[in-house]
Amino acid sequence: MNANDISFFFNPKSIAVIGASPVSGKLSHVIMNSLKEIGYPGAIYPVNPKYESIDGMECYQSVADIKANVDVAILCIPASTVLGAMEDIVTKKVKGAIIVSAGFKETGKDGAEIEEKLKKISNETGIRIMGPNCLGIFDNISKIDTFFVLRERVKRPRVGGLTILSQSGSFAGTIMDELSAEGLGVAKIINYGNRVDVGETDCLEYIAEDESTKVVGLYMESVDDGRRFIEAARRCAAKKPVFAIKVGRHEAGVSAAKSHTGAIAGRYEIYSAAFKKAGIIEVRGYSEFLDACKVLSKHETAGGRKVLIITDGGGMGASIADACSDFGLQVVEPSQKIKETLASKLPPFCAVGNPTDLTGSVTDNDYIMVLKEAMVEYDVAILMVLWGPPMLTDRLIKMLKDASFEIKKPVIICSPGGEYSQKRNKMFEEAGLPVFSSPEEAARAAAVLAKSSR
Amino acid sequence: MNANDISFFFNPKSIAVIGASPVSGKLSHVIMNSLKEIGYPGAIYPVNPKYESIDGMECYQSVADIKANVDVAILCIPASTVLGAMEDIVTKKVKGAIIVSAGFKETGKDGAEIEEKLKKISNETGIRIMGPNCLGIFDNISKIDTFFVLRERVKRPRVGGLTILSQSGSFAGTIMDELSAEGLGVAKIINYGNRVDVGETDCLEYIAEDESTKVVGLYMESVDDGRRFIEAARRCAAKKPVFAIKVGRHEAGVSAAKSHTGAIAGRYEIYSAAFKKAGIIEVRGYSEFLDACKVLSKHETAGGRKVLIITDGGGMGASIADACSDFGLQVVEPSQKIKETLASKLPPFCAVGNPTDLTGSVTDNDYIMVLKEAMVEYDVAILMVLWGPPMLTDRLIKMLKDASFEIKKPVIICSPGGEYSQKRNKMFEEAGLPVFSSPEEAARAAAVLAKSSR
Repeated sequence: MNANDISFFFNPKSIAVIGASPVSGKLSHVIMNSLKEIGYPGAIYPVNPKYESIDGMECYQSVADIKANVDVAILCIPASTVLGAMEDIVTKKVKGAIIVSAGFKETGKDGAEIEEKLKKISNETGIRIMGPNCLGIFDNISKIDTFFVLRERVKRPRVGGLTILSQSGSFAGTIMDELSAEGLGVAKIINYGNRVDVGETDCLEYIAEDESTKVVGLYMESVDDGRRFIEAARRCAAKKPVFAIKVGRHEAGVSAAKSHTGAIAGRYEIYSAAFKKAGIIEVRGYSEFLDACKVLSKHETAGGRKVLIITDGGGMGASIADACSDFGLQVVEPSQKIKETLASKLPPFCAVGNPTDLTGSVTDNDYIMVLKEAMVEYDVAILMVLWGPPMLTDRLIKMLKDASFEIKKPVIICSPGGEYSQKRNKMFEEAGLPVFSSPEEAARAAAVLAKSSR
Repeated sequence: MNANDISFFFNPKSIAVIGASPVSGKLSHVIMNSLKEIGYPGAIYPVNPKYESIDGMECYQSVADIKANVDVAILCIPASTVLGAMEDIVTKKVKGAIIVSAGFKETGKDGAEIEEKLKKISNETGIRIMGPNCLGIFDNISKIDTFFVLRERVKRPRVGGLTILSQSGSFAGTIMDELSAEGLGVAKIINYGNRVDVGETDCLEYIAEDESTKVVGLYMESVDDGRRFIEAARRCAAKKPVFAIKVGRHEAGVSAAKSHTGAIAGRYEIYSAAFKKAGIIEVRGYSEFLDACKVLSKHETAGGRKVLIITDGGGMGASIADACSDFGLQVVEPSQKIKETLASKLPPFCAVGNPTDLTGSVTDNDYIMVLKEAMVEYDVAILMVLWGPPMLTDRLIKMLKDASFEIKKPVIICSPGGEYSQKRNKMFEEAGLPVFSSPEEAARAAAVLAKSSR
C-alpha cells in the first residue's frame, strides 16, 4: 500500500460514528441518517458513553469496545475532546478518521494547536485524517454519505461521472444541491475542510485511477503541497478533464478565505500558472464552475475555438456573438461555399452568416440543416432557441439530440425565457444536451470546452 | 403638439389592424388577441378586403371605409404591399403606423428602398412610423399589446415601474418572458425594430415625462441621432435611472447586428463614452441587463461602492468577495469598534470581518444583528443565505424585509442551490427583496446600484 493511499475512505467495511446521538437534528444524527438513506452497505457502529442504543442499534461506550475491525471513524464531538478520542482510535488501528467538528484553526490559536497535534498523530501513526471542519465524503458509487446537511434542504444528485473536490464545505453543499437541481450525475463529492492531512493532492491521485470519475472539479482556497499537487493534477488531467477554481483572487477574497479555513492563500497568479502547467482548466467564479460541471458532464472537449452560432432571434444572436468574443472564442464567417448552400436551403429573409439568423419563421428542420451543413468548419455550436416562433415544436429536442450525436461535435443550447422555455430546458437536459439560460453562460461553457482541448 | 411627440401611440382611441385575419396563429390574429387579452379599452377595426367579419367584428375593405377616426394603424401585410397601404393610411389622417411586417432593409436592397420611401412619407406627411420589422408596443398601464408572440409561450409581466426600449424584437420578447417569470413589474416594453422613424430618442423623451415609468432599460444596436439621443437620455436619466446595453461590442457582434436590423453599428467605445456623458448606467450582456432590471426595480441607487458581505458559508462568502472586487466594489473591513460589537454578540467560532461568516450554526437573528450594527459603514449589503444550516427558518425573510426597510440602504440576497432555496427565493422576491442565485449575479447587481449614484 502506497503511504498516500486513501482508497479505504471510499470502500470502508465499517464506520464508527463517534459522538453518535439519538437527538434528531444533531450533526451526528444527520450523518447516521445520511449513511442509511444512501444505503451504505457496511457496518455502522454508534459510539457514545451516554447511550446504550441509538435508533435500535447497539451504542458503544468507546471505539475499544467494538469487537470487529473499524475502517473509518467519523468524529462529531467538540474540538476540545477530539485529541482524547484520537488516542482510542489509533489504539483500535482504525485506518482513517473524518473529523467533521468545527472549532479549530479557523477560530484561533487554541484550535491551531490542536490541529498541529492532529498532524503529528497522523505522521507518527500513519492514520489518515480528513478534516477537521468538513463534511467528508459523498460517494454515489460505493454509497457513503457523511454530509451533515439535511436531505430535505440539500438534495443528493443522481449517479454519474462528475467528482468534486472542495476545501470549502459551503461550496461542496451548495454545488451538491445545484447539481441535483440540474439533474447532473455525480460520482463523488469530497470536502476536506481544514486539511490537516488528506487534501486535494491525495484525492487527485486517488481520483485519477477511479474509473467511475469521468471529470473532476476542484475548489481551492490554498494548496497543501504545491509541487506534488502539480504532478498529481497533471497525471489526473492526462486521463480526464480537470477544472479548478481558486477562490481569494483579490485581496478581499484572500482575507475571507483565511478567516474561513485558516489557510494562507498565496498569490493568485501562481495558481493560475500552476493550473496551466498541470493541464487544468481554470474557471473564475461560482457560476463558471457550475457551467463547467454542466458542459463537461456532456462533452469532453471542443477541440478548438471556432464557434458556430445559430439563432431564431437576431438581437439575441448578437448578444451571443458578443459574449463569445468576450470569452476568447472565434466567431468567424462560414466559407462562401457553405453560405451558398445555406442560402439555397433557407427562406430569403434569413440572415446567413455567423450567427445565422433563422428569424421568427424558423422551423425545427432549419436548425438541423444549418448544423449539419456548417458544422464541418467549426469546433462547437451554440444554438439560441427562443420558443416564441410558432412553428417550432418539441420535436426539435429529439432532432437536435440525434444531430449532435451524428456530427460528433459539442452542441450547446441557449434558451432564455420564462416558464415555457424552462420546461423545455428540462427536456433538453433529459436528452443529454447541455442547456443554458443566458448568452453569457452558453458562451462561457463553450469556452470551457475550447480550453479543454487536451 | 411637439413634432417629436409620440404620446398618441400609448393612448390611441382606436386601432386599425391592416391585414387582419380570422386564421388562428396568423400574425395579425395573434395581435388582435393580444389587444383583447390585455383589455385594450379603445375601438379595434380589422381591415382586409378578403373578409366581411372577423371573430364577430365587422371587417373593413380599406382604412378609408372606417367612419370614425383612427389613431394608430398596425400593418401586418407583406413588405411589398406596405407602401400602397400607407397611401390610404395617410389619406385617412391616421396619426401613427406600427409596421410589424419583416422583409425590409434586413433582407437587402429592395427592402432598403421601401424603407427610404417610408421615411420620406413620414417626413412629408408628419405621420409617425414605428418599425418595420418590430413587435411594437406593450403598455401595461394604458392596456395596449401589439406583440405577436403567443401568450402561452411568452407570458406578460405584471404591472410595475420598469420600461424597456429595444431595437431588437427577440430581445424584447425574451426579456418580457423573463420579467414575468421573475415576477417583476413592467410599465411598457417598446420595440421599434428597423426604426425608419420612431426610435430610442423619441421614446426616451416620452418616457422621461411618463409618470408610470420609474426605471428605463435600453437595448441598442445602433443610434438614430447621436446628439439628440445624448440630450434626451441626459434629461431622462436626471429623473429616473436609465441603464443601457450596446450589442455588437466586438467585430463579430457588429456584423450580427448589421444583418439583423440592417443598422450600421458604430464603434463601441463611442457608445460607452456617450452613455457616461448622458448619465446612463452601462451594462454588458444580457445577464447583466436582467440583473439591472431586477435590482433597479427594487432600489434606485447604492450611493457608493462599499459593500458589506454577510454569509453562513465561508467558501461561498469568499466567492462573493472575489466577484465584488471583479466588479469594482470595495470590500473593506468594518471599523475596530464595529468588529468588537459584532464579536461580542456572536459565538466565538464566527469570523467577524468582511465577509462576516456566521457559519452553519447561524440563526435568523444573527443576520439581522450584523446588518443593523455594521451597515452604517457601508453603501450596500449582500447577504449570502445558504439554507443548509438547520436553525435558519423562513421567518428570516420577513425579518430581512423589515430590516432592509429600517436601514434605508439596499440589501441584496444571494441564495444559490436547488429546490429548497429556489422556493425561498420566490418568497424573497414577493417580499420585495432582490434575490440572485450566484455570487457573480449578486455582485454585478450591487455594482449596478453603485454606478447608479445620481
